[in-house]
Amino acid sequence: MTLEERLINGDRRAVARMITLVENNDHDAFEILKKLYHRSGNAYVIGITGPPGAGKSTLTDKLVKHIRTLGKTVGVIAVDPTSPFTGGAILGDRVRMSDISMDPGVFIRSMGARGHLGGISQGTSAAIKVLDIYGCDYIFVETVGVGQSEIDIVKNCDTTLMVMVPGLGDDIQAIKAGVMEIGDVFAINKSDRDGAKRTAREINAMLDFSSKDWRPPVEMVIATENQGVDKLFEQVEVHRQYLEETGNFQQRRFDNTKNELIEMVKHKIVGQLMDESYKQEIVNELSDRVAKRMLDPYTAIDTLYDKVIKQES
Amino acid sequence: MTLEERLINGDRRAVARMITLVENNDHDAFEILKKLYHRSGNAYVIGITGPPGAGKSTLTDKLVKHIRTLGKTVGVIAVDPTSPFTGGAILGDRVRMSDISMDPGVFIRSMGARGHLGGISQGTSAAIKVLDIYGCDYIFVETVGVGQSEIDIVKNCDTTLMVMVPGLGDDIQAIKAGVMEIGDVFAINKSDRDGAKRTAREINAMLDFSSKDWRPPVEMVIATENQGVDKLFEQVEVHRQYLEETGNFQQRRFDNTKNELIEMVKHKIVGQLMDESYKQEIVNELSDRVAKRMLDPYTAIDTLYDKVIKQES
Repeated sequence: MTLEERLINGDRRAVARMITLVENNDHDAFEILKKLYHRSGNAYVIGITGPPGAGKSTLTDKLVKHIRTLGKTVGVIAVDPTSPFTGGAILGDRVRMSDISMDPGVFIRSMGARGHLGGISQGTSAAIKVLDIYGCDYIFVETVGVGQSEIDIVKNCDTTLMVMVPGLGDDIQAIKAGVMEIGDVFAINKSDRDGAKRTAREINAMLDFSSKDWRPPVEMVIATENQGVDKLFEQVEVHRQYLEETGNFQQRRFDNTKNELIEMVKHKIVGQLMDESYKQEIVNELSDRVAKRMLDPYTAIDTLYDKVIKQES
Repeated sequence: MTLEERLINGDRRAVARMITLVENNDHDAFEILKKLYHRSGNAYVIGITGPPGAGKSTLTDKLVKHIRTLGKTVGVIAVDPTSPFTGGAILGDRVRMSDISMDPGVFIRSMGARGHLGGISQGTSAAIKVLDIYGCDYIFVETVGVGQSEIDIVKNCDTTLMVMVPGLGDDIQAIKAGVMEIGDVFAINKSDRDGAKRTAREINAMLDFSSKDWRPPVEMVIATENQGVDKLFEQVEVHRQYLEETGNFQQRRFDNTKNELIEMVKHKIVGQLMDESYKQEIVNELSDRVAKRMLDPYTAIDTLYDKVIKQES
């Protein structure tokens, strides 16, 4: 059987192979995705983000187990844009997932920064498509932190779950500003710790200023003890229902797609700047002159654009 | 006097104005930068990054004060890619800098995500140029976290100072993997806390695996008590000396410039995808068809590329 046939027949190793291939920008793999793309769109994609130390992977683990009790299949993509590693379960805390990784109804994959010239969100988007075509009912995309690339990554998602934790200190202020826009559902993990109620209160106070139609719920959970996890998933489902009933689901998928297309164009351009040695020479020569202040960068990119991008046949 | 003249004559308000204008993609401001670019390149640019809660802004504050005692002028750009805000001292912890912000030899600026279609690193690069032309001897670029965008931002820098803190928990493993590549000097802040020595040991152990010529020093500091700050700055100067004596300084500036030019091309492309309504219509129509699975995204970007990018005169 071809890789394509194996993928749609639910062969797990075909999934792993396909993700590796798209990560490596393999032409044939993208041809398969192109052909099978119409089979995608059925998985519900949940983004999980939040500051380091919030216990995102433990919570993901518990959510996956809960969803499995409902008889649904799950894919998990753990994205670490700062890690040079990619592939298997290399992140330390992924080890905690070992019991779910034995479950044939669960597919787990870590993605690092390797080979993502155009940004890791490219690779993540492609991996989501692969898992979607493979037939996962739910796909979790878990990120390491809450920087811009994490925000870009969760822009691929239908519902974004923001995991907070008590006692983040002053820096929570800075995180919160960006959080407001992307969190659809909030979890305060480790909620038996001091300050959990205060954290929930602060988040609620900030949400009061939001003008969005959807008011994100804030749930107290203790992932390690599996407390509040089912309730949290219920809230994800409530958000899904909200999106579907209001027509916002189609709007969100449109917005996500538009964002993705723009990222893909950028990716293509960067690839083209470097795909032949004469172009690399132009880029290097211009960079050298700009670094030496013989040329300003604004004139340099006009030159680059005319000599490389527009000449492309 | 024109804005250009005011900038080179050291008018502080001209700096603020110029940064606001470049943030807003103002054409005239970029014309000024283009014209004055040859005056830049003299400032030494220091990136400060590390996880939220590491005390980066307090440490920056103390480093700035220390440099001021050496009679040098300093610019500080505090970058928060997750914040929708930009402009003055809006970040909570920037308030701690209020005493240095009164010093005429110091210029402080916060930058958020507003108006940065092509990524915040664009705005940061331009702001560095403005402060450089203005005449700052040192420019600090401080980021909120250590995600990919933070890594992109510190790629503008000559020396990158990585601020760590004891007790980050397991997630430090994930952070560290990416950190290795960008940190030139490491500070363990809040080093009176439990686990500081262990954190230093772990970082040193990871640095042992690096094959780089430069072995990053790891310094213990307590920023709030101004302990170890002068020693830390000495290490930055040692790194600078290393770069200059080995020729790596020119190489790094070349690499940074090349990276910046590529980012600028991406920025330009995104701008062009959206600069006229007929193009926006093409983007919207394609996005809609892809979202509805009537078209695959790979075919869509080929169309987008041919219809929009290559037609650009």
